[in-house]
Amino acid sequence: MTLLGEHGLQEYCLQTARQAHCAAEALVTLSAEAKNAWLRASAQALRAQADALLEANALDLEAAPGFGLSDAQADRLRLNPERIEGIARAMEEVALLPEPIGEVIESSVRPNGIELQKVRVPLGVVFFIYESRPNVTADAAALCVKSGNAVILRGGKEAAHSSRAIVDILRGVAEAHGIPVDAVQLVSVADREAVGHFLALSDWIDLAIPRGGEGLIRRVADEATMPVLKHFSGNCHLYVDAEADLQMAQAIVMNSKCQRMGVCNAAESLLVHAEVAPDFLPQIGEQLQQAGVEIRGDEQTCGLCPDAVAAREEDYAAEFLGPVISVRVVPSTEAAIKDINTYGSKHTDAIITNNAETAETFANQVDTAAVMINASTRFNDGGEFGLGAEIGISTDKFHARGPCGIKELTTYKYVARGNGQVRG
Amino acid sequence: MTLLGEHGLQEYCLQTARQAHCAAEALVTLSAEAKNAWLRASAQALRAQADALLEANALDLEAAPGFGLSDAQADRLRLNPERIEGIARAMEEVALLPEPIGEVIESSVRPNGIELQKVRVPLGVVFFIYESRPNVTADAAALCVKSGNAVILRGGKEAAHSSRAIVDILRGVAEAHGIPVDAVQLVSVADREAVGHFLALSDWIDLAIPRGGEGLIRRVADEATMPVLKHFSGNCHLYVDAEADLQMAQAIVMNSKCQRMGVCNAAESLLVHAEVAPDFLPQIGEQLQQAGVEIRGDEQTCGLCPDAVAAREEDYAAEFLGPVISVRVVPSTEAAIKDINTYGSKHTDAIITNNAETAETFANQVDTAAVMINASTRFNDGGEFGLGAEIGISTDKFHARGPCGIKELTTYKYVARGNGQVRG
Repeated sequence: MTLLGEHGLQEYCLQTARQAHCAAEALVTLSAEAKNAWLRASAQALRAQADALLEANALDLEAAPGFGLSDAQADRLRLNPERIEGIARAMEEVALLPEPIGEVIESSVRPNGIELQKVRVPLGVVFFIYESRPNVTADAAALCVKSGNAVILRGGKEAAHSSRAIVDILRGVAEAHGIPVDAVQLVSVADREAVGHFLALSDWIDLAIPRGGEGLIRRVADEATMPVLKHFSGNCHLYVDAEADLQMAQAIVMNSKCQRMGVCNAAESLLVHAEVAPDFLPQIGEQLQQAGVEIRGDEQTCGLCPDAVAAREEDYAAEFLGPVISVRVVPSTEAAIKDINTYGSKHTDAIITNNAETAETFANQVDTAAVMINASTRFNDGGEFGLGAEIGISTDKFHARGPCGIKELTTYKYVARGNGQVRG
Repeated sequence: MTLLGEHGLQEYCLQTARQAHCAAEALVTLSAEAKNAWLRASAQALRAQADALLEANALDLEAAPGFGLSDAQADRLRLNPERIEGIARAMEEVALLPEPIGEVIESSVRPNGIELQKVRVPLGVVFFIYESRPNVTADAAALCVKSGNAVILRGGKEAAHSSRAIVDILRGVAEAHGIPVDAVQLVSVADREAVGHFLALSDWIDLAIPRGGEGLIRRVADEATMPVLKHFSGNCHLYVDAEADLQMAQAIVMNSKCQRMGVCNAAESLLVHAEVAPDFLPQIGEQLQQAGVEIRGDEQTCGLCPDAVAAREEDYAAEFLGPVISVRVVPSTEAAIKDINTYGSKHTDAIITNNAETAETFANQVDTAAVMINASTRFNDGGEFGLGAEIGISTDKFHARGPCGIKELTTYKYVARGNGQVRG
């Protein structure tokens, strides 16, 4: 990575965006076969050049302590033969997904004889800003190109060598399969200001996707002149209804909270109906405590769970991403719904109940990207939902909501076929 | 309309937005029957109270010269029994549209047995900022409520009395049909700053839709903290291919340009393939001249149309909205596509050709909301496309493109139904 002067930097960003725009124009008409062949060839090339990848990765791992990365963070950065195989296989899986471009979403024949189609088309150019793990580089490139978009990748500096090696491999097999080489570009300058320059280029870039901490997302949302697909926090709620199967509830609470604590679809808040609280809270309290999870509860919760500490108001709005859970006893499903709509983050919210009507009320009235009925919040995920890989989980309501795969990277156009119709 | 102090104004806007948010929560679960009954009752009430409407409208017409409105603009403002009948009938037509909310857009059973549905839901609260014609007030209210959204209407001051009368009638029949009365609110303060206050309330308002001049749209896009559905200019292009039926081309050019010149789907630019230019341009030039349309052309055009004047570069990017058209002779379909993608505004672009392959190339490669093949650009319209009324025509690619009706005012949520699944 180099550092450029201010003018050179702006020029570099503009040129990168223009190249992406040109590539996108070519991608619009590329066949599914060409894109899928490139995906499979990329997977093969990643396997074949595993040694070069591991070498590049070693440079990133060496530099990790200098970036202040913890051991756990450095481990997420690490490549090994199994992980490279995983990256390659993910690209092959994207190749197996149905072709999104050209899909006729709706069609009709108008009374005047015009045949009208609503056809799925690419968005154009995606600017993707992300952190750490090298596999995200390959996933993003695969999803964008499969959906007919060119992508400008701005990865974290921690994974710079690994990302560069992956992108070089993907670009290396592009031309042979008729894919414009600039369909995938990795920003090669380290300057922080580059992001701001790209965000100003709405004439050339159609969508910005920031994936990382809340600070990054807010900055991008504030500065961007193009639409932004936002992935804010996951303050996911679990509601254990009066008519819940308490054994099922226990399993779902433990899985939602503890199976992987640092991810956006892990549960952060537990609401328990007052009728079952005396039965349920002491046992789940003990289990959570055994798993090392701190309970921050309201008065009733603290009365039922000896290890709980008193929650403050802000605990109910917090995304802990760690071994803490806020707990509240609620008098009714309506109260639970109100609580979730007030404190939740519209990401994933679950109900455990055997009453189908209560479940439907909850599903209809909780304003969230994904409602889980009698299932773990951890299932809100592109892979689990059958979208293939995902480029993020949108907490917006506009354009796309929840896990975003290839379809969410597309838009549509109307095509009207007539034989001379004019308007009277 | 009143003027409030700065603090009072902010308070008023916040209260209006909160009321809308509450109404939206109630609308989520309203039945199609309730919404349609309200739409039909509103139509009947508009007819029954036609005299009151005409009285209110007379006040607006009286004030029109004071607002500097031309006779033509004042005429667009005018209500009469036929126009009131038109407004009422439009509400009844919205009642006949299929219910959008609750539609299962996609569904699947995951390998772990979870039943996954992608369900259409309302966006929430829509802030609609528009100008002049009173029927837009009723259309917007009808579309928003049918799609389960609450709407905050900020109409033009020119139509203040008419809009108020219409909204009072619509609100008057709300409660009787179980519709929250604040599902439809008209901003009752004249302060220009009110718009800025509303645009800051992303916690309560989910979407802003500005409909009016480019200045208004840019202001809203710049200030809004929520997503904006933008309707920028319509620099619509017509391309007459070498293999066009020239008689058909003539009819489509004249209709696209002249049937109604001041609207966004009127044509502003004509591209003619060099092979047919010597045959086509002299005759269409004469016809356009007879219709009072000025031709601004390139050198070849000026050579073939005696009345044409030389075009400047900016003429090709202009939306004239009046009796002017820019004309250029192009050497190929590829050149026409490039021209449209460079100078067009992604609104509506038409090709006239008998070559199906050329038509498909054009449809695939022109980046626009609506491609018309052998049909007038004037057909890009919600009514003509079968969407019922429209709240605008989006020139964005994100969320919605082209005419926006009730579906475009919705989003979706995922509902996952399990029986205790946890993630392994």
